[in-house]
Amino acid sequence: MTPDAYRVIISKRDTRHYLDKPIPDETVQRILQAGRMAGSSKNSQPVRYIVVRGAQGKAELAGCGQYAHHLPSAPLVVALVLVPGGGAFDAGRAAQNMMLAAWAEGVTSCPVAMHDQDRARAVLGIPPDHSVAMVLAFGYPDRRYPLHGGRQRLPLHELVHWERW
Amino acid sequence: MTPDAYRVIISKRDTRHYLDKPIPDETVQRILQAGRMAGSSKNSQPVRYIVVRGAQGKAELAGCGQYAHHLPSAPLVVALVLVPGGGAFDAGRAAQNMMLAAWAEGVTSCPVAMHDQDRARAVLGIPPDHSVAMVLAFGYPDRRYPLHGGRQRLPLHELVHWERW
Repeated sequence: MTPDAYRVIISKRDTRHYLDKPIPDETVQRILQAGRMAGSSKNSQPVRYIVVRGAQGKAELAGCGQYAHHLPSAPLVVALVLVPGGGAFDAGRAAQNMMLAAWAEGVTSCPVAMHDQDRARAVLGIPPDHSVAMVLAFGYPDRRYPLHGGRQRLPLHELVHWERW
Repeated sequence: MTPDAYRVIISKRDTRHYLDKPIPDETVQRILQAGRMAGSSKNSQPVRYIVVRGAQGKAELAGCGQYAHHLPSAPLVVALVLVPGGGAFDAGRAAQNMMLAAWAEGVTSCPVAMHDQDRARAVLGIPPDHSVAMVLAFGYPDRRYPLHGGRQRLPLHELVHWERW
């Protein structure tokens, strides 16, 4: 294993502008596989995946979140569904695995919250005791928009404490 | 960027048996940097990091979780603290980044929940309106214990739905 993984990890940015270019099925498979292999609390594997590529499904999901307008322009959308008892921390782990696997192949992404859970449940047809932890939009980056624009990070010394707060 | 990142992602397992071997400072820095660079909701950057390597701090943290007995044997422990309003999904993203950056250098890890939040807050000295999203244990794997033992995953076709549930 090489430091390439580290470069993928630290260069990944959440972006919302995608080319109108489909993502190959093999890449989709690797993205899903990356989610599947994410660790979870007591190996409970609480995350399920709904792949949405149809225009109608994407448009309907765009109506379920306050910042979901860009979903229809993403060639690949994957909803992360939590089974009862599943936690958002594990969904975050799976999502990061998927977004890094995508970025390793040049596919950028952005998580999108579904503020209207009831509507999202209806759109996706999921059971009432399940929840939509997040929806991920994937696509090749539209380079007319900066990948790193406005995505500044606080310096490490402001984020890290040693031994105690 | 190469497929190496994908191999790191899908081979990572959460394991709790570590060698008594320190982790180099440069590796610690990359692990923290990986956390720092994780995306977050509206770039809110809600995660703070407390690096714990002292024996006393690790022993005290081990008393704050139901499955935290192995913390003292980990050469590196990092507590992920959420500022007010921060969400577990973002903590999961940061944690996965850190654990993958570590694994890319051969360092395994395991997230540990702090069930007694009040006690963990006191041990770490964090403000009362902050929470400990998770504690991560890091170490070189003790190969006397299997890396993949019991960490089976459900098959992909049971986890994935297409267009709708």
